[in-house]
Amino acid sequence: MKRIGILTSGGDAAGMNAAVRAIARSAMNAGLEAYGINYGYKGLVEGNIFKMESTKLDEIVNRGGTILYSARYPEFAEKETQLKGIEVLNKFGIEALVVIGGDGSYHGAEKLTMHGFNSIGVPGTIDNDIPGTDFTIGFDTAANVATEALDRINDTATSHQRVFVVEVMGRGAGDIALWSGIAAAADAIVIPEREYDIEAIANKLTENRKNGKDHGLIVVAEGVMTAAEFKEKLDQYGDFDSRAVTLAHVQRGGVPTTKDRVLAARLGDYAIQLLLEGKGGLAIGIHDNKLVATDIIDTLENHKHQTDVSLLDLNDRIRF
Amino acid sequence: MKRIGILTSGGDAAGMNAAVRAIARSAMNAGLEAYGINYGYKGLVEGNIFKMESTKLDEIVNRGGTILYSARYPEFAEKETQLKGIEVLNKFGIEALVVIGGDGSYHGAEKLTMHGFNSIGVPGTIDNDIPGTDFTIGFDTAANVATEALDRINDTATSHQRVFVVEVMGRGAGDIALWSGIAAAADAIVIPEREYDIEAIANKLTENRKNGKDHGLIVVAEGVMTAAEFKEKLDQYGDFDSRAVTLAHVQRGGVPTTKDRVLAARLGDYAIQLLLEGKGGLAIGIHDNKLVATDIIDTLENHKHQTDVSLLDLNDRIRF
Amino acid sequence: MKRIGILTSGGDAAGMNAAVRAIARSAMNAGLEAYGINYGYKGLVEGNIFKMESTKLDEIVNRGGTILYSARYPEFAEKETQLKGIEVLNKFGIEALVVIGGDGSYHGAEKLTMHGFNSIGVPGTIDNDIPGTDFTIGFDTAANVATEALDRINDTATSHQRVFVVEVMGRGAGDIALWSGIAAAADAIVIPEREYDIEAIANKLTENRKNGKDHGLIVVAEGVMTAAEFKEKLDQYGDFDSRAVTLAHVQRGGVPTTKDRVLAARLGDYAIQLLLEGKGGLAIGIHDNKLVATDIIDTLENHKHQTDVSLLDLNDRIRF
Amino acid sequence: MKRIGILTSGGDAAGMNAAVRAIARSAMNAGLEAYGINYGYKGLVEGNIFKMESTKLDEIVNRGGTILYSARYPEFAEKETQLKGIEVLNKFGIEALVVIGGDGSYHGAEKLTMHGFNSIGVPGTIDNDIPGTDFTIGFDTAANVATEALDRINDTATSHQRVFVVEVMGRGAGDIALWSGIAAAADAIVIPEREYDIEAIANKLTENRKNGKDHGLIVVAEGVMTAAEFKEKLDQYGDFDSRAVTLAHVQRGGVPTTKDRVLAARLGDYAIQLLLEGKGGLAIGIHDNKLVATDIIDTLENHKHQTDVSLLDLNDRIRF
Repeated sequence: MKRIGILTSGGDAAGMNAAVRAIARSAMNAGLEAYGINYGYKGLVEGNIFKMESTKLDEIVNRGGTILYSARYPEFAEKETQLKGIEVLNKFGIEALVVIGGDGSYHGAEKLTMHGFNSIGVPGTIDNDIPGTDFTIGFDTAANVATEALDRINDTATSHQRVFVVEVMGRGAGDIALWSGIAAAADAIVIPEREYDIEAIANKLTENRKNGKDHGLIVVAEGVMTAAEFKEKLDQYGDFDSRAVTLAHVQRGGVPTTKDRVLAARLGDYAIQLLLEGKGGLAIGIHDNKLVATDIIDTLENHKHQTDVSLLDLNDRIRF
Repeated sequence: MKRIGILTSGGDAAGMNAAVRAIARSAMNAGLEAYGINYGYKGLVEGNIFKMESTKLDEIVNRGGTILYSARYPEFAEKETQLKGIEVLNKFGIEALVVIGGDGSYHGAEKLTMHGFNSIGVPGTIDNDIPGTDFTIGFDTAANVATEALDRINDTATSHQRVFVVEVMGRGAGDIALWSGIAAAADAIVIPEREYDIEAIANKLTENRKNGKDHGLIVVAEGVMTAAEFKEKLDQYGDFDSRAVTLAHVQRGGVPTTKDRVLAARLGDYAIQLLLEGKGGLAIGIHDNKLVATDIIDTLENHKHQTDVSLLDLNDRIRF
Repeated sequence: MKRIGILTSGGDAAGMNAAVRAIARSAMNAGLEAYGINYGYKGLVEGNIFKMESTKLDEIVNRGGTILYSARYPEFAEKETQLKGIEVLNKFGIEALVVIGGDGSYHGAEKLTMHGFNSIGVPGTIDNDIPGTDFTIGFDTAANVATEALDRINDTATSHQRVFVVEVMGRGAGDIALWSGIAAAADAIVIPEREYDIEAIANKLTENRKNGKDHGLIVVAEGVMTAAEFKEKLDQYGDFDSRAVTLAHVQRGGVPTTKDRVLAARLGDYAIQLLLEGKGGLAIGIHDNKLVATDIIDTLENHKHQTDVSLLDLNDRIRF
Repeated sequence: MKRIGILTSGGDAAGMNAAVRAIARSAMNAGLEAYGINYGYKGLVEGNIFKMESTKLDEIVNRGGTILYSARYPEFAEKETQLKGIEVLNKFGIEALVVIGGDGSYHGAEKLTMHGFNSIGVPGTIDNDIPGTDFTIGFDTAANVATEALDRINDTATSHQRVFVVEVMGRGAGDIALWSGIAAAADAIVIPEREYDIEAIANKLTENRKNGKDHGLIVVAEGVMTAAEFKEKLDQYGDFDSRAVTLAHVQRGGVPTTKDRVLAARLGDYAIQLLLEGKGGLAIGIHDNKLVATDIIDTLENHKHQTDVSLLDLNDRIRF
């Protein structure tokens, strides 16, 4: 093997650039050439590909977003387009592809693998919802951004005796809601993985007011409903002087945390080590604190991310 | 004079606690007693008042929100209630009142002054929209929070070649929009102080795309319209793959910046120095980098905050 | 069991307060009373003990330091003093003790357990050097503070083509150095767990300069030597326009990260669950992402923290 | 005028890149060409000069350090070298030079002006010690970094009842010490502009301990002495369980604050507006909140930065 390609796809996540650096560097230091592919699968098919240079890589380690850009490209669901992509990769002499991204990005890598082109998926998404790994690159940063926002909102909630309903990202997984909610002492956390009981939540808030906590914080994962919708439902059970806030895209970019950068370094290097051993067609990740690689087809077809729902019970035990 | 009272009122702003500390300490160190009044004018009328202790004050200097709480209290617009408030103050032996807050809070202090009770208004609000001062306590922190959020959003905008419309706080003043917009290299800033031309903004974005900048950032002050409304209008002029984001309450709380804390220290101490000189009935502030005190009645009746609209022209000269 | 006691001891670490809250709340919500012990073992022996109230606990979740304070107290190494402590605990009707702290703090808990008083050790220290857990409360925050400092220093190193030698905390463990060093793209990381070769490091820096990276970053754990000492040695091998910086105490306090707060919540609650099950005399922690409890005497006598030294090899593969 | 040159010189400061962007953009949008000069005056003399492109400028607005680099170059004190520099500028067709930097950098611009080459000095240094301006680009960021560090240290000081002596940057000016010291509730601030009385400081700390504040914070500007030296002196007056910390280079780089970026935008654009009006040989700055331009020769020869020493008296009135 002489050349590997790298692309990022799907929603950007903090730490993607640290992963790009680790993949490229680990490849270069092992004697390979690393090619960057701009704009995800779209750039792949269009041949928007360049040879990466080592000198510029260290300075991207702390930058949000992705220097390789991302782009929507539904056309890549078609076999013809996938084969076109492999043709382009062959033309550039690229023998293996490392894809950083979420669910959709993995499916691209899966298809390329099915057509015989060696691809490895590196989990990069803020939602933490990819099978084959306990944590994705970008989740820790997103959770910290959400927590910091909740801290700020707690200041206002306390000052004004209000209840805030805050919607955090997480379409299919409640991980950001759980981690930031626990970290910010939320009174209730609402996630897609478990039924919520709005009457019980409202009763708890009313009871809290009697017992000396006259403000509240409810964290809702976007996959359940919007903050505005939840607030409207809640208001039917009492006058909580409630406010709805949607954190939205601020959770996505920004300077990655140490944990996300170290995870990016470990996974990025691991992808290259596997390729050097002749392996491929893998989804890689971290499980029980150890690097793991699983068959990308089996992982995507037969497994699902398991949110640690016990954190919800934990929150019930430590809240006011 | 033996005793002064302190209250916070209106929306909380980062740095209010640093102001509370400076007022209380400056009073204590000059031999006065400082009384904290909880829940703004409501607590004043209800006698929710306590003697402050020096030992606990240093640790609030970096905390968001207000330890004296705030509360809505429209009843204070009535003369009867105002006189009731003065009665309570007299009962506690409080001879002068320092009020930290925004426009509405100032009006309370104005009324008390009109009824003969010495009051001083300290400008504390994130919107920077109070007459009699160039800068309010809380504005610098809010602007920094907004800028950091815009930085994050720029990462995503760049990665995905999108246009983001971001709504920042500022009901009557465009200051947060202007400062954060310039700081984050916005392509357009929309403020209540000046007519906007949405067609011109759309054309600029289209032109940018031709000239090599394929993403964009538009900062809209909430006083103009919501981000969603602006996005909808914008989309009529082209396909910008646009997104609307509302920063909302995250701009309010949080750890205050150095500038807000130093401003709070200066203004808080200045209020006490003026009271010690026998002065009162004043709105205080900072103008051209100097502490200033103006008649609170005249200031509120005859003056308006002047946003530095030249910053909009500046942004036009330095944007892409 | 009716009453549990909580104390913090040793160097403060971000997240200790979140652990105090979780322990106290989990106890209260299970029907127990929680007593706070001020100033560590000193306060224990002196009876500086108070009943904790639920209402004030949520607001400490994001505060650095420890609201229970800490104090040096070498006297607690003596059996007599330990028995005096148990006497005091009995007097207060406290039946079990949860100690948050580092190595020294654990030894106190071990001794109390040996004398028959049920104690549980919760790992709280920035150094990540406690046996029985993969991660300690405070480590993630400290690593992030160090990384942010290294990011800043990289800006200056790049602008001025300098080599910076930065000393981070970690007397017996290189974990902060490893994590922050990888995160900040260090050219070399020097830790107590492995011999360093200063000539090799100097040669690498010289070689880097030839290959296009004209600045450098070396992260040194304090357990190896000071930054100033390392710089002096390094300068004997070439003119690197080097600077020595010691991050020192800034790594200790501050707002805890989400990860540290969630870890504090999990471990704090776990301590109470174990006590409710009638267990005690335990060191608790997180291992391979799962909560674990081990005999505190065996853990302290027979085990040592294992730094993941493979991170050093990883850094060698991904650096310039 | 067709072409202007931009260089940064002296110690890097956060916001320098925002200034580079504003200067270049304002020039480009006015129809001029902007040339970047790498490595300060060294690069100028060596002809390390390139035409800047508009597309890459927006993304540097939030980056610390300087993309134009800096370098020591004592040779530029010699007339011969200065004339060589002008020769190079003429060769590149550059008709005016904008220099961002501190005292030393201004002297270079002064000399070029004396030799007839139109130069403008933009104040960029963290120390806030340049005549002709109330605030320099980089000061607000450095003060905020210092304040955040002091906040962290306060957590530890409070937890352990210690006194911390913290050395902040500021060789000739106490501005960082004053602003961060007031912001972090320091018990004493020691600056080069005023004599300090160590006995009085020690007595105050001892008295504080009696009155209920058992920890302390002393901020020392590096221009007075090192933290270690101050601690040693202090320890002669009592047992304060004191610690010395030097913040050092972390104050320099990092993401610039909103205030520093807006100041950079205003000053950068102002430099170009002046050049377009045919003016030059100027030091520009902000005074009493307004942009000002003064003769660079007169400013450097006859004026000195005036630290607002009244802040020291303010701190004495609001401290414990």
